Amino acid sequence: MRANIRRNEQRRVVIVGGGLGGLRLALQLKDTGYQVVLIDKNNYNQFPPLIYQVASAGLEPSNISFPFRRMFQNNKNFFFRMGEVNAINTDEKTIHTSFGTVHYNDLVLAAGATTNFFGNKNFENHTFPMKTVGESMQLRNTILARLEEAECQDDEAKREALMTIVVVGGGPSGVEIAGALAEMKRTVIHRDYPDLSARLHIYLINADDRLLKSMDPQSSAQAEDDLKGMGVHVRQNSKVVDYVDKEVVLENGTRIPAETVVWVSGIVANQIEGLPTDSIGRGRRILTDRFCRVKGVEDVYAIGDQSLVEGDPTYPYGHPQLAQVAMQQASTVADNLIRADRGQTPRPFSYRNLGTMATIGRKKAVAEIGKLKFGGLSAWMLWLIVHLRSILGVKNKTAVFLNWVWNYLNYKQSLRLILKATGKPTDNR
Amino acid sequence: MRANIRRNEQRRVVIVGGGLGGLRLALQLKDTGYQVVLIDKNNYNQFPPLIYQVASAGLEPSNISFPFRRMFQNNKNFFFRMGEVNAINTDEKTIHTSFGTVHYNDLVLAAGATTNFFGNKNFENHTFPMKTVGESMQLRNTILARLEEAECQDDEAKREALMTIVVVGGGPSGVEIAGALAEMKRTVIHRDYPDLSARLHIYLINADDRLLKSMDPQSSAQAEDDLKGMGVHVRQNSKVVDYVDKEVVLENGTRIPAETVVWVSGIVANQIEGLPTDSIGRGRRILTDRFCRVKGVEDVYAIGDQSLVEGDPTYPYGHPQLAQVAMQQASTVADNLIRADRGQTPRPFSYRNLGTMATIGRKKAVAEIGKLKFGGLSAWMLWLIVHLRSILGVKNKTAVFLNWVWNYLNYKQSLRLILKATGKPTDNR
Repeated sequence: MRANIRRNEQRRVVIVGGGLGGLRLALQLKDTGYQVVLIDKNNYNQFPPLIYQVASAGLEPSNISFPFRRMFQNNKNFFFRMGEVNAINTDEKTIHTSFGTVHYNDLVLAAGATTNFFGNKNFENHTFPMKTVGESMQLRNTILARLEEAECQDDEAKREALMTIVVVGGGPSGVEIAGALAEMKRTVIHRDYPDLSARLHIYLINADDRLLKSMDPQSSAQAEDDLKGMGVHVRQNSKVVDYVDKEVVLENGTRIPAETVVWVSGIVANQIEGLPTDSIGRGRRILTDRFCRVKGVEDVYAIGDQSLVEGDPTYPYGHPQLAQVAMQQASTVADNLIRADRGQTPRPFSYRNLGTMATIGRKKAVAEIGKLKFGGLSAWMLWLIVHLRSILGVKNKTAVFLNWVWNYLNYKQSLRLILKATGKPTDNR
Repeated sequence: MRANIRRNEQRRVVIVGGGLGGLRLALQLKDTGYQVVLIDKNNYNQFPPLIYQVASAGLEPSNISFPFRRMFQNNKNFFFRMGEVNAINTDEKTIHTSFGTVHYNDLVLAAGATTNFFGNKNFENHTFPMKTVGESMQLRNTILARLEEAECQDDEAKREALMTIVVVGGGPSGVEIAGALAEMKRTVIHRDYPDLSARLHIYLINADDRLLKSMDPQSSAQAEDDLKGMGVHVRQNSKVVDYVDKEVVLENGTRIPAETVVWVSGIVANQIEGLPTDSIGRGRRILTDRFCRVKGVEDVYAIGDQSLVEGDPTYPYGHPQLAQVAMQQASTVADNLIRADRGQTPRPFSYRNLGTMATIGRKKAVAEIGKLKFGGLSAWMLWLIVHLRSILGVKNKTAVFLNWVWNYLNYKQSLRLILKATGKPTDNR
């Protein structure tokens, strides 16, 4: 089986991964001199900043998932292929995938990062990551199923464990999901499970001495205050060392019985075989020069969470693994490919920090733009606008965005569904 | 573990199954003298007449799934429990469930029917049933995944098998899914897979000599004409005898290579242990008297697809397994429970046939009301109105219904998602 993609006289750019970086790159190469082949495990782009809202039953999976083929309809130079990329052969300029071998002229690695369980099998097998729409659906189904189980449970200790959710990780994902779960408790759970909701406990366990370590201490303090006000048990300076017998074990020996543990404690770049060993850096990130060109190989680029740009004096340890960085790197690579096509010299990547923000609940957020730091309703409104802007790059997404804002504000009734694709014949390829 | 339901002085009605019958019964007993316990495998009611539209990516699963708890908020005499019912003990008046033992004063069995594979393991393990929202999600994911696979396949024969969908069963479900798939081909697949759509083949295999056997021959002929006009290969008088090596085997020896087989060829009632053997009839249906009381036991009722009323001279072989029958039986049982509470005598079930209809495509349907038979746009409009009416019984569903009509007419863009709940920690209870 081969990839079955028509060859033509155009130079072919193969993009591995249709996340915010890979997708933006593909869109920017539309109607240029390049043939674009986009490869992803899923047939849709997912919007990472809102994945936690799927987990907390605030949004439908389809509200933040956009089919690739829809975006490139009637585009003759674009090819989407669904599958996994296993290895690169930089000598032959091919990649080996689950659907066959694909030749490239230029290759862009944009396959992102995955959850880091730090080698602990208990974390990996028994806690819930939240990096993808699929994982967040699984977490939502589990939270709702645990509530149903708790309703039938007359053993007090077992019921308490069913009603305890521990979030591990005090970064933006941890703060956002803890806040969203607290809101879910106050609204949906309070109404649907009147006997139970008071017994639901949400813990946020943070290894650092403050939440949102990448932000200003003032924002950290505000996030902590807001979460505590919403009833979240915040534990600072607490390292989770294991998860055994359905108990979260902290370094100081404390054990918290909890059936549901959300693991948002760190990420590690996705691996692809075939690159030189010395092109792989900290957190498995692929090392590039300032033009996002992978170290030691020709015509291979890496962008986004999977990559680490070396040589930027402002960011000597690389840029943070954020959506903004991925999207700006995508623009740099797209520009440079177009410039190369015209015989122009490339321009180095330069990161422009547009600000950092995290949302805690409805009308509660923290934001930092340059020296400006603020919280509350204005930060929350800004958070909405910024996400509207970044989703807008994708054609026709305005309606979808307005739809989710509407749902988000209205607690749409049908979202508390434990929906699973079922049936004997599974797609076993 | 016990079911953990507060006992009070009220008489307790336990309803097994929250389908159209069970749910209507629970709603009609709201604010009466009864305590109601509703048990279902899912935490939501699903609307069977529209399940095929989830499979063909015409509707979201959440458009036709309604959480039980939402409907009974603030109702102190209502208890929902999610789980499976394994057995009944009519002597002790208890049922044994996955979440413990539940006592009843009155028991109503409304657990519906499941797909009948006629004992063939190949059908059971390798074809796709379409009785539940979960099954239809699985079918949709598979159809879309097969298209992605076909895009990468350069072996002509293998590609043809990937691009062939065989629907087995010429009843309403078969006609509706075949028509919906033909529409999906014409719209979404045509635009998203321009290289493939012409090669997609949809077969409808019918063992009888005409489609929609329960309707008038005129409606059958119209359905066949419409489907053929939409490009569906209709095979009458064709019995599927096996499915081996990814080939559908017909009785006359013909083999159709097809990776996707939709099995809508018949149903069989769901089984519950503990009833007397002679209370089980044809198709495993539970035999009742004309008051829907199960034969040979006390205070146990059965309604809907799971049951068969004996002794109605107009329907000597029982009523058809249709939504209308289930809902009318629910009303009969609710009325009789309320009458019993008041010391009044019960009234027998009497089925009023409101008409039969099947939709074939947008603006294409067939309908029969009494002696009136018609098709086309007027039948399709009537189909919409009738479904609006039956979904309306459930409070606050108007908005949801309008939403799906809107989606249905607009081919909402994001529905072609292969969405799966993923992640290591599965809910292994």
